[in-house]
Amino acid sequence: MLREWVAGMKVVLADGTLLAINGSLVKNQTGYDLRSLFIGSEGTLGIIVEVTLKLTTPPGEVVRLVAGLPGLGPLLETFRRMRDAFPFVNAFEYFSREALDEVLTHHQLQDPFREHYPTYILVELETSLCGGAAAIEEKLVPLIEEGLVSDLVMSRNGKEADALLSLRERISETLSARHTLHKNDISVPIPALSDFLGELVPLIETRYPGFKVILFGHVGDGNLHVNLLKPPGMEKDAFFSFCKGADHDVFALVQRYQGSISAEHGVGLLKRDYLHYSRTPAELALMRAIKGVFDPRGIMNPGKIFAD
Amino acid sequence: MLREWVAGMKVVLADGTLLAINGSLVKNQTGYDLRSLFIGSEGTLGIIVEVTLKLTTPPGEVVRLVAGLPGLGPLLETFRRMRDAFPFVNAFEYFSREALDEVLTHHQLQDPFREHYPTYILVELETSLCGGAAAIEEKLVPLIEEGLVSDLVMSRNGKEADALLSLRERISETLSARHTLHKNDISVPIPALSDFLGELVPLIETRYPGFKVILFGHVGDGNLHVNLLKPPGMEKDAFFSFCKGADHDVFALVQRYQGSISAEHGVGLLKRDYLHYSRTPAELALMRAIKGVFDPRGIMNPGKIFAD
Repeated sequence: MLREWVAGMKVVLADGTLLAINGSLVKNQTGYDLRSLFIGSEGTLGIIVEVTLKLTTPPGEVVRLVAGLPGLGPLLETFRRMRDAFPFVNAFEYFSREALDEVLTHHQLQDPFREHYPTYILVELETSLCGGAAAIEEKLVPLIEEGLVSDLVMSRNGKEADALLSLRERISETLSARHTLHKNDISVPIPALSDFLGELVPLIETRYPGFKVILFGHVGDGNLHVNLLKPPGMEKDAFFSFCKGADHDVFALVQRYQGSISAEHGVGLLKRDYLHYSRTPAELALMRAIKGVFDPRGIMNPGKIFAD
Repeated sequence: MLREWVAGMKVVLADGTLLAINGSLVKNQTGYDLRSLFIGSEGTLGIIVEVTLKLTTPPGEVVRLVAGLPGLGPLLETFRRMRDAFPFVNAFEYFSREALDEVLTHHQLQDPFREHYPTYILVELETSLCGGAAAIEEKLVPLIEEGLVSDLVMSRNGKEADALLSLRERISETLSARHTLHKNDISVPIPALSDFLGELVPLIETRYPGFKVILFGHVGDGNLHVNLLKPPGMEKDAFFSFCKGADHDVFALVQRYQGSISAEHGVGLLKRDYLHYSRTPAELALMRAIKGVFDPRGIMNPGKIFAD
């Protein structure tokens, strides 16, 4: 979470005060953490004018692998096994067959596998931290033998590693280039991810009959990007208005799994009327009261997060 | 920072409301981060009754090394060099000769070196992540050749690793067992650590003439534990009252370095009257107003952090 990389910040408040919070300290336990309150407040508490970020060491040489899985069932078990086998898993990304199809078609790329699989993962590992490429390969064999993974390709050099990454990385831009779409960015507790997907897909098929669903996400964050493509021939306005309504069912499911209706992209105006699916009335009341402390006249990014 | 390991929590508010915040989500960007507000609030905003922690993989086999340095000057450069040389440095701890003396005497242990040095470090590295013990040793040689490090011992097995750790780990308990003391737990930006120490020690010698100073700390966090031992023959009350006054000078120096007067241990009652050295009047006013939102009648741990 980006939150963890922010050491300090400067913020201009509604009354013009310039607040310098935490400087570049790693440890500071002197009262309330105002810094975390401003992160993700979307300009409603003050305007962040400077941020001090912690730096990290860039990863060394990496290997990436793409694997085809026989379904959603083995997704979490494969994730657990990888986390047990390797000291660090830089990335563990999920994408559906439909997502891969879009990228392969749009960029005229070759499928890394002969067969089609319903579920794909992209995994990145730092070679030297994981004992070298041969040791990595050896630890992957049981996953195939046990049927968790149907097929697997692993990069042998930087060029291949980049090519494998692009299969996952290009999904979002490809969808935007080729389709009118409705995106959702949701999260659930990691152990609930497969069960949640098992309910989400039938729900979408019921609520959006005939719509194409493209799924991808960050398994290690419990974060899913759910994309609905506008069927050919449907009016844009009708499509978006339909999706806006059907979102209530999707978010009710998210709520039942104690998930978030916005994992990464905030609330703004688009998610404002759905906020109650992720935050309780008590939390919303506290957030409004905190907003009142910082911005009594309601001049800081009005209307965002909360309705006026 | 512990803050990063808290996924979610349950809190009872002043009006009896039970608030469940964030469950076990990794990513959730739906409004203000109330969770971070409660962490470190010392019971003044609500009573935390349940916490969901993120788990991490325990470290594998480690080597630990203790090194004697010719002074405070090379401390930061040695830290930088270690961070550059190794992908992860689990711990980089500093302690003074006086601190080591206390532990050696109290526990009747042998000095790991023949000579005395003014400055010591304890470093922990995970063997397999750093390419094995031989590779680690090889990377340490230049530090000795360049004179950053005067002498160095590295553990060859778990027993030796534990013995080296205990030289640092036992400092705090040893001091409490042997002395009446006044402790400070402060932090400064990491790059300022050596300069800060270079001013702190003469300041202490001036402000606390004849007092014994014991220094240790976590260099990677910019965090120093400053311990003043009561001189033999001085009354306890006189000692503590003297320290309380002299703290103003120490904290004024901390403030000049944009540091924190309490890195780890909070404010409570002891640091309450010094809070203004680390938080500006504007921050203090906001904190009080936030307190008012959660606890309008002032019944949650009254008197802590803020004076009534």
